Amino acid sequence: MEQASRTHIADVLVVGGGVIGLAIAWRAAQLGLRVVLADPDPGGGASLAAAGMLTPVAEAAYAERELFDLGSTSLRRYPAFTAELAEASGLPTGFRQTGTLQVGYDADDMAMLTEHARLRESFGATSRRLSSRECRKEEPMLGPAIAGGLLVSDDASIDPRLLTTALRAACTAAGVVHVRQRVVHLRTDGDRASGADLADGCVVSSASVVLSAGWASAGIGGLPPGAAPPLRPVKGQILRLRPTQATLAASGSSSMINRTIRGIVQGSSVYLVPREDGEIVVGATQEELGADTTITAGGVWQLLRDARAIVPGVTELELAEAVARLRPGTPDNAPVIGPSLLPGLVLATGHFRAGVLLAPVTADLIAGLLVSGTIDQAAAPFSAQRFERQAV
Amino acid sequence: MEQASRTHIADVLVVGGGVIGLAIAWRAAQLGLRVVLADPDPGGGASLAAAGMLTPVAEAAYAERELFDLGSTSLRRYPAFTAELAEASGLPTGFRQTGTLQVGYDADDMAMLTEHARLRESFGATSRRLSSRECRKEEPMLGPAIAGGLLVSDDASIDPRLLTTALRAACTAAGVVHVRQRVVHLRTDGDRASGADLADGCVVSSASVVLSAGWASAGIGGLPPGAAPPLRPVKGQILRLRPTQATLAASGSSSMINRTIRGIVQGSSVYLVPREDGEIVVGATQEELGADTTITAGGVWQLLRDARAIVPGVTELELAEAVARLRPGTPDNAPVIGPSLLPGLVLATGHFRAGVLLAPVTADLIAGLLVSGTIDQAAAPFSAQRFERQAV
Repeated sequence: MEQASRTHIADVLVVGGGVIGLAIAWRAAQLGLRVVLADPDPGGGASLAAAGMLTPVAEAAYAERELFDLGSTSLRRYPAFTAELAEASGLPTGFRQTGTLQVGYDADDMAMLTEHARLRESFGATSRRLSSRECRKEEPMLGPAIAGGLLVSDDASIDPRLLTTALRAACTAAGVVHVRQRVVHLRTDGDRASGADLADGCVVSSASVVLSAGWASAGIGGLPPGAAPPLRPVKGQILRLRPTQATLAASGSSSMINRTIRGIVQGSSVYLVPREDGEIVVGATQEELGADTTITAGGVWQLLRDARAIVPGVTELELAEAVARLRPGTPDNAPVIGPSLLPGLVLATGHFRAGVLLAPVTADLIAGLLVSGTIDQAAAPFSAQRFERQAV
Repeated sequence: MEQASRTHIADVLVVGGGVIGLAIAWRAAQLGLRVVLADPDPGGGASLAAAGMLTPVAEAAYAERELFDLGSTSLRRYPAFTAELAEASGLPTGFRQTGTLQVGYDADDMAMLTEHARLRESFGATSRRLSSRECRKEEPMLGPAIAGGLLVSDDASIDPRLLTTALRAACTAAGVVHVRQRVVHLRTDGDRASGADLADGCVVSSASVVLSAGWASAGIGGLPPGAAPPLRPVKGQILRLRPTQATLAASGSSSMINRTIRGIVQGSSVYLVPREDGEIVVGATQEELGADTTITAGGVWQLLRDARAIVPGVTELELAEAVARLRPGTPDNAPVIGPSLLPGLVLATGHFRAGVLLAPVTADLIAGLLVSGTIDQAAAPFSAQRFERQAV
């Protein structure tokens, strides 16, 4: 006997309810499209372990010029994006434009930072070089050994968990249909994507399918060879540290640091991102060991060691949570944003460490593509074709 | 309108369902006494964070001769105690008599270990001195920097969570009535303890009351001045590390170490206690900061740093749990075992770090006292009178 299975009809099926998928669904629905968003655990993927740094300048050292420009564009959109989101959802996002202080632990680390500064100046970005004493004036809780730093004033941060919660509410308000199911198989009709099969046997029938499920995008069946970009999982472990009654009593303030601090400690990178309530997110490991999300003794040890070197007082905070998730990495660590070789299948994945930063610009680009059929030139460097060519 | 409240009638009320209270209740019930055991969360106190090392010899360096003797007596009873418990409960306890390897990280740490060895030899205990190479022959996963060690063959370990579970089952089988309530107030009748009031308004009426609730013993109302020993909470944080699929595949064996390893790492103490299934318990901090059980970044960092110095491979294990509980410390860090100045009120608390080790001997001593009215001479050094005198 066959089980009755429901069919959802939509203009667009968005596969994946992390920041990227949610932002796309929201923007697409705002443009009048009927959107179904499918995710078994919205906000529970890489977004859950994201610290929410919005630091295109600080990231620039590791990135190509194009990715820096895309990140800068997205950061510039963030104030309006979050204001609009707050209005649409009635919920906070924790957006704070308080800058980033990059610090070096020793002379070698400072040399690396100076190299970063030179690179970012060549991109037209600016930062102010600070002495060890000037760093401590900005951030009095910095460790005494800090050699010096760079202050980037424009950078911001957001709470990715608040962000996904607000985006879900805004999606609902805009008419997005949430389906809490895993997409198991892409459906095609002739030479076009036409929807997908869900884990519960239901079907979504749609004119377009947006693949925006991060690393999980790689696990969906029925994709024609070459239609999805090559993705690898890059594990990130992060910690959440929280004030205790003792630290609150000792400092008289909830916050141990005033802004995002990124440190290089004897070659090892660490960041500390503060929230309004005094929570500090410490991240992140980068482990290329397959699709494993185990919290390891070594990962936690490394994060605590480096965070403690930068801000010794963090040892007094509560270790409230350790969590690991998988970032979606492409061969060049830049995202894929735009059409695929399969008509109707749109790609928005591979955002690696920058999914939160790039959510506003990615959503605008993809929503524009869905409505107009063509994608803005800004997405050209992030076309899937760069991997399709390689695959030949 | 007054609420109806139940009265439990018993020969003995045991206050506290950690290893000490449970072992006493079991032994007292075996001797024919009607026992009520009251605890809102049996096994959820200090026992929950205990590693279960049974190492009187390794502890000797920090202890008085009398405590070493008491611990040795208790260790000798452990094989029969656990065999009887297994039969009574039908449950395992994880008892393993595999010895302890004490190691020193550097030359100063080795000097401290040698000092320990000399002290324990003066107590008549023995241990075998091992070179760095001999240590690694016993424990191949030891770090290359280990300076040397001492092997104590008689030591054992147990899983305190299995132990409390088995003791609860054995208590039930022996007729102990479990009451999942907090004792709020001691009741007296003339000059004698006569039971207690419970948090839900019920009453236990009993000829004797055994105070064996660890640090929580200090929070019970109605105790006459001087009747309870001075107790302070000493916080201990521990970690549970577990094998992952990757570590199991790499080693072909579930266990990274063969026996309890106690290390001194640049003056800081750490221990690693293995379980049959490959879990390793790493402990423990000792923090004298009041009744706080927060897991701190600094506590976890210190444990991981020192464990990693001893057995570098632990970094690959899953950090499965971090837990903190409060040990009950007396002014001399030795337990109080025996009658109090209030007739009918019996004390079995203040076991500090040795509650699991001392459970069999404490239970035998207290059960004997409850039945006969006099306590064995072995308990003399642990009489409450040593603090009553000081209090004058």
